[in-house]
Amino acid sequence: MNFMQALRDRWDGANTLVCVGLDPEPAKFPAHLRDTPDAVFEFTRAIIDATAPMACCFKPQIAHFAALGAETALQRCIAHVHAHHPGVPVILDAKRGDIGSTAERYAIEAFDRFAADAVTLNPYLGRDSVQPFLDRADKGVVLLCRTSNKGAEDFQDLDCGGLPLYQRIAEKVARDWNGNGNCLLVVGATWPKELAAVRALVGELPFLVPGVGAQGGDVEAVVSNGKDANGRGLVISSSRAILYAGDGLDFADAARAAAQELRDTINRFR
Amino acid sequence: MNFMQALRDRWDGANTLVCVGLDPEPAKFPAHLRDTPDAVFEFTRAIIDATAPMACCFKPQIAHFAALGAETALQRCIAHVHAHHPGVPVILDAKRGDIGSTAERYAIEAFDRFAADAVTLNPYLGRDSVQPFLDRADKGVVLLCRTSNKGAEDFQDLDCGGLPLYQRIAEKVARDWNGNGNCLLVVGATWPKELAAVRALVGELPFLVPGVGAQGGDVEAVVSNGKDANGRGLVISSSRAILYAGDGLDFADAARAAAQELRDTINRFR
Repeated sequence: MNFMQALRDRWDGANTLVCVGLDPEPAKFPAHLRDTPDAVFEFTRAIIDATAPMACCFKPQIAHFAALGAETALQRCIAHVHAHHPGVPVILDAKRGDIGSTAERYAIEAFDRFAADAVTLNPYLGRDSVQPFLDRADKGVVLLCRTSNKGAEDFQDLDCGGLPLYQRIAEKVARDWNGNGNCLLVVGATWPKELAAVRALVGELPFLVPGVGAQGGDVEAVVSNGKDANGRGLVISSSRAILYAGDGLDFADAARAAAQELRDTINRFR
Repeated sequence: MNFMQALRDRWDGANTLVCVGLDPEPAKFPAHLRDTPDAVFEFTRAIIDATAPMACCFKPQIAHFAALGAETALQRCIAHVHAHHPGVPVILDAKRGDIGSTAERYAIEAFDRFAADAVTLNPYLGRDSVQPFLDRADKGVVLLCRTSNKGAEDFQDLDCGGLPLYQRIAEKVARDWNGNGNCLLVVGATWPKELAAVRALVGELPFLVPGVGAQGGDVEAVVSNGKDANGRGLVISSSRAILYAGDGLDFADAARAAAQELRDTINRFR
């Protein structure tokens, strides 16, 4: 699978910009699953199957699996997407970043061990820390730009010769790092003004936009400020608001309904 | 174990500033170990036992385990240090960084699942992304400042109102984030001028200094530019130059000799 092509096919073919974030937290699972031996996989698989028609991609967050020692469940979830929902790409949300020789190991972790189609990275260490990922031209490389949290202001907004740091990063990625056309940027839904500023800098480079749903980002502002000239260019991610929409036997139906509603709301503003 | 206290005890009691980096790469293992079923653990354990007397701490790099699916070996290596070399703290080199709710899961991964005494973090997401780690007052929080790689120049040197970004980060960590006295900074051995600049900004805050050995950092310059007023304050990390000093049956002896030589070279310049 070529990540960028698959993403475009989902945007157009399935008419959706929704990314379903997979952050399993057993304490929030429905009671009937909570104490079963394979709960992390069973819960996540049910969410995947219920929401796949509305997903332009899935985004498992690796910390939620790692904290549970559930690497095998993560592997099985990604394999399940590829086997049962072919064409829906998977972004591994890992925010890795290290010197080149170590970055190569992280690329193996994300792309070979877990078979993800794209991975999120932290650009703070610069070009050589990202190169082993950029070189995998069929894979997506999703670089942090302006994150959705409050603390984003601490360093990302620092004025670097007339442009805030996050815009310097956006510029560098769009101009210098995107030779294989496989880069995306993370810009939080909670910062609509910043979304517009980054869109103005980078043309049609796609954005991964976390922060709608539980974090409170406004969908209309995200779409109108973040969309590209074709009314797409956005991977709008919601995790908790979909995963934990219901906590009964029908949790997967509730998740499906939440994903549908998000897709439709987004599409109204495109 | 309180990480900072344990580190100071090792600096003084064992008279060493050497951190032994644990980056297992099976292709570089001695032939007699390479194809054994438990090679990652057996190799790493032999290195740990051979070098512990010269180590102020150990630093396993998680990507090297994750790429191999060897989380269990990592867990056993850290447990082995705690059981057989009590008092030698372990820094998990993971460079994590994510929004608060996810950072909590990463703190569980590092401190509870793997039982590390400290962890490296990427500060790009700001204060709230680091808070769950800062709150663990007995654990060390090692924040990237000026990394050892060439790409460090891309963003870390950007002029942010008269100070480069990495110095802004150093200032923020020393002034605002170190309330529990459990912060350290990563400053690469390959940048002696920058080491001196950060030391001038942050008083006695300890530095984790990677980049001697395979990456070419000069030990004399590191020590004279990086040491604190007491001739310590440094955790000077070498991985490949110790781990792969020999590739025969006596690889552990070769590693011990390399660690001893590094310790003694460092001590000559303190």
